Amino acid sequence: MFNGLSAFPLTPMDGESVDLNALGRVVNRAAEAGADSLGVLGSTGNYAYLSRDERRAVLETAVEAADGVPVLAGVGAVRTRDVLVFAGDARSAGASALLLAPVSYQKLSEEEVFGLFGTVAAESDLPIVVYDNPGTTGFTFSDDLHARIASIPGIASIKIPPPVPGEVATRVSKLKAGLPAETTLGISGDWVAAEALLAGCNVWYSVIAGVLPRQARALVDHALAGRSDLALSASAELEPIWSLFRTYGSLRVTAALAEDLGVVPSSALPLPLRGLDSEGREKVAEAIRQSGVEA
Amino acid sequence: MFNGLSAFPLTPMDGESVDLNALGRVVNRAAEAGADSLGVLGSTGNYAYLSRDERRAVLETAVEAADGVPVLAGVGAVRTRDVLVFAGDARSAGASALLLAPVSYQKLSEEEVFGLFGTVAAESDLPIVVYDNPGTTGFTFSDDLHARIASIPGIASIKIPPPVPGEVATRVSKLKAGLPAETTLGISGDWVAAEALLAGCNVWYSVIAGVLPRQARALVDHALAGRSDLALSASAELEPIWSLFRTYGSLRVTAALAEDLGVVPSSALPLPLRGLDSEGREKVAEAIRQSGVEA
Repeated sequence: MFNGLSAFPLTPMDGESVDLNALGRVVNRAAEAGADSLGVLGSTGNYAYLSRDERRAVLETAVEAADGVPVLAGVGAVRTRDVLVFAGDARSAGASALLLAPVSYQKLSEEEVFGLFGTVAAESDLPIVVYDNPGTTGFTFSDDLHARIASIPGIASIKIPPPVPGEVATRVSKLKAGLPAETTLGISGDWVAAEALLAGCNVWYSVIAGVLPRQARALVDHALAGRSDLALSASAELEPIWSLFRTYGSLRVTAALAEDLGVVPSSALPLPLRGLDSEGREKVAEAIRQSGVEA
Repeated sequence: MFNGLSAFPLTPMDGESVDLNALGRVVNRAAEAGADSLGVLGSTGNYAYLSRDERRAVLETAVEAADGVPVLAGVGAVRTRDVLVFAGDARSAGASALLLAPVSYQKLSEEEVFGLFGTVAAESDLPIVVYDNPGTTGFTFSDDLHARIASIPGIASIKIPPPVPGEVATRVSKLKAGLPAETTLGISGDWVAAEALLAGCNVWYSVIAGVLPRQARALVDHALAGRSDLALSASAELEPIWSLFRTYGSLRVTAALAEDLGVVPSSALPLPLRGLDSEGREKVAEAIRQSGVEA
């Protein structure tokens, strides 16, 4: 479950409400296209904005639509008490693993983050993916902290942010060297996925796979079979989209992309978040034309 | 209400529960010592970690304990929908104003933050203090955005983070120049308060005033009467404490200080936050001795 392609679907909105029907369709498409797991309520799934009831409904819908493909449930929150409640709900909804980011308001120390993972791992019997995303959480992991957390029983995998361009292979091998052999390493930042998988990452925690699961599946298959030219060219074909991810952030671009390709009926985000402006939307339409992708 | 001394009490905890009795005592002490307003559920008040019910109970307790002194209620949340709910609760609990920070998970654009303040100002009839705190929210205001938001009817004051040392006066006058005359400017970052008030800030949004309200009141009185030597020396006396604020952050130091001085029974914080370690606690005790403060 912590290898290969993990698709992270967006959580489609209908105004300020979650569109559960559209969510079910998005999840089912990714499962049918051969995702090895589904990362529901990740950053692109807007978990940080949803209430407990909304998160529960999203997970129940996703587990059903996933049709046997394991669901990883995002359970991050600023308070440990709430994380534990969300972890219990995820278990009840049938999720197979937890995805946990050290979401912060006050800056967190390494000991506080270590304590958070220790507490959740002790309280839940679901395996945990450590979600390292300094851009949204405000917390930066040291390699030493990653190694300490990975040694806690129940920690299964680490989802890392995109390394600096040109340093992907170095970053992946250095981090892996400090981890227990059974901890898998997963890349996010779709534009470096091919390179990171070729450098030894075990799994691609993929935003684009929520919208274009066939294309993501093909890229992973090439990379894990060592067909580096084909993996890199599959990634290069999507460069017009990656470029927009880097400029506007993957959430807003993915929402627009999913709507433009007819995968979801609306690209609405929970306020105060707003979708791309008309200039950004035009660039998304142009990127679709340039890359020639179809849903 | 947006001038002089605004005391920001901590929200005392008893383990993972809010200690409402201790909160009432802390609020009442600051009111009795002559605070012009009370900033409840600020960052030091742990608002970001509390549930809707907890926030409501804190505000009801605080309004009663404040005994007529106006209460500013922190209502920040990552989602606009939740901010509006908290704003309605604050109104019902008898708060006199809202304190609103653009708390973020996904990075916010200027238009998104402007939209947030516009929506809340339109929906609530309470005046609003713009809470600018990039260290916790991840959002940095431009001066232009401050000016645009301040022009929205209902925006009453701006709470700014401490400027770079040596640039306090320049920063205060530059920002004030762009604001409507009726918008007050308030300083946070207690160690620059005297300097900022002498440079034209109208109000000190003060963390230390939750624990040492008499001392904070005296500093403000000197500064607003133009007795700069006395204001600066009142601040200098507290330098051993300011130094710890800068090193450990004001939340953890204030919690330890309040416990050591006997103002609250416990310095517990909501997990994953932890109080100071024993080395930090010893430094707090030493700072109390050096500065000679008494509760």
